[in-house]
Amino acid sequence: MKRLESRPYRDSFLPTLKAQVADCIRTIGRRPALRVVIVGEDPASQIYVAHKEKLAAEIGMDSLTVRFPSNVPSSTVRDAVAELNSDPNVDGILIQRPLPKHFREEDVLLWILPAKDVDAFHPETVGRMVLGLEGFTPCTPGGCLKLLDFYGYDVRGKIACVVGRSSIVGKPLAALLLARDATVLHCHSQTNDLASMTRQADFLFVAIGKGEFIRKEHVKPGAVVVDVGVSRNEDGKIVGDVAYEEVSEIAAALTPVPGGIGPMTILGLLENTLTSARRSAENREKK
Amino acid sequence: MKRLESRPYRDSFLPTLKAQVADCIRTIGRRPALRVVIVGEDPASQIYVAHKEKLAAEIGMDSLTVRFPSNVPSSTVRDAVAELNSDPNVDGILIQRPLPKHFREEDVLLWILPAKDVDAFHPETVGRMVLGLEGFTPCTPGGCLKLLDFYGYDVRGKIACVVGRSSIVGKPLAALLLARDATVLHCHSQTNDLASMTRQADFLFVAIGKGEFIRKEHVKPGAVVVDVGVSRNEDGKIVGDVAYEEVSEIAAALTPVPGGIGPMTILGLLENTLTSARRSAENREKK
Repeated sequence: MKRLESRPYRDSFLPTLKAQVADCIRTIGRRPALRVVIVGEDPASQIYVAHKEKLAAEIGMDSLTVRFPSNVPSSTVRDAVAELNSDPNVDGILIQRPLPKHFREEDVLLWILPAKDVDAFHPETVGRMVLGLEGFTPCTPGGCLKLLDFYGYDVRGKIACVVGRSSIVGKPLAALLLARDATVLHCHSQTNDLASMTRQADFLFVAIGKGEFIRKEHVKPGAVVVDVGVSRNEDGKIVGDVAYEEVSEIAAALTPVPGGIGPMTILGLLENTLTSARRSAENREKK
Repeated sequence: MKRLESRPYRDSFLPTLKAQVADCIRTIGRRPALRVVIVGEDPASQIYVAHKEKLAAEIGMDSLTVRFPSNVPSSTVRDAVAELNSDPNVDGILIQRPLPKHFREEDVLLWILPAKDVDAFHPETVGRMVLGLEGFTPCTPGGCLKLLDFYGYDVRGKIACVVGRSSIVGKPLAALLLARDATVLHCHSQTNDLASMTRQADFLFVAIGKGEFIRKEHVKPGAVVVDVGVSRNEDGKIVGDVAYEEVSEIAAALTPVPGGIGPMTILGLLENTLTSARRSAENREKK
């Protein structure tokens, strides 16, 4: 069984991205710029944001975190985002989740201009992806496909089963798979006889946030399995949605947790920021 | 076999819609207003637009068609749409397709404000539907589900197979089915062994524009089959994507062509226009 770690992808991709950033700087005369907005002190978010900033700096991007206390009025944050939207030297904006409860997610989703929506959360960005128009690829679902590309797997004409229908992973992933000519089976908590669906899959993607839920009996022998889940089991160990040991006996390939899809998300974010910087340069040229 | 005609739905729904329009007029002090923009002289479009205007008038809506010659600069049409966007007395705007070749579809898709996008073509509208946010339901896919509702069929927990992945029908239909808790199998021209997929479906939806392509061997005995296709066969007869006679021997229910899904689209358009008028009144009240 092939263990689909993301480290080799990352190690080969980061130098490329760094070179592309350097090239972009020569073209646009400044560093591609990412702004991360964070509200409150959620510890996991702090770590995640620091990690983004560090990696962005490592490849030569300009990354800044804009911080607000958890009791900030949502209108203050909205105005700050509006300022970043109109700043021609900012290419990508991301609002770190979770936000405090007095923020209405339906409103926040609309704050970042689609042209700077490198996290791909705005409904227009989602619609652009569905319709195949220019936009940004959602970071985690895009990461799943890039990792498969790296290891030489092609979903075209194959049966791809997605388990889970979150706005962040399941739904956009199904759309990307369809655009890549896979036949898509989309399953979720209301699916009857899940195993009869998942066992058809040449490519099985799981993003449900239920530790070790997918067992051997869910998997077709020889399938490629992509595990997007991250949770802790009873012993406090970090596990995916797939029972790794058991499924590795039957799958042809499987992404581990940790070290599989997780690190792909941030790489997608940086790639989207670079794409945005390049586009803004092209748009300036057109004018 | 049950023949799922849309006429009974239409006959029961139109009086309801008419009463709702009358109620809306009492609330907002004017008729809900739809504007249809048409460019050029495409005969099918002329008929379709006239039909929209007639039906809108019949239920008490204010409907106007804005006409341009086929050689109009696209910027002129864009400016006219911008004017309709900012007119507080216009609730819904629709740009009739096909447009002449000098119009770029990627641009045109963005002209109508999402708040007035009653045809549900704007990427933000598509993304809103995918994400489950307030917006408009795409007319034809929404019509498929309304017709099933009318006849008492519920897709929840069932296997729904969609054949076709157009931006107008297949993709939004798959999203609506998922939101209704169906397990969705999405097939298309690159699907291998199509019949092995479609035969799993409790509900089979076909929108590929290939006359009488779906035969008996594609259908599970007792399935409910919804045929969105309209084309002409060699004898010039209007047919759907489903071979009606043959499939009716095995399906539990089947929509005919013509007289099935076709007329549902325009009803969805009028319903969206009413919804938009009601929302604009609510938004005024909030202010």
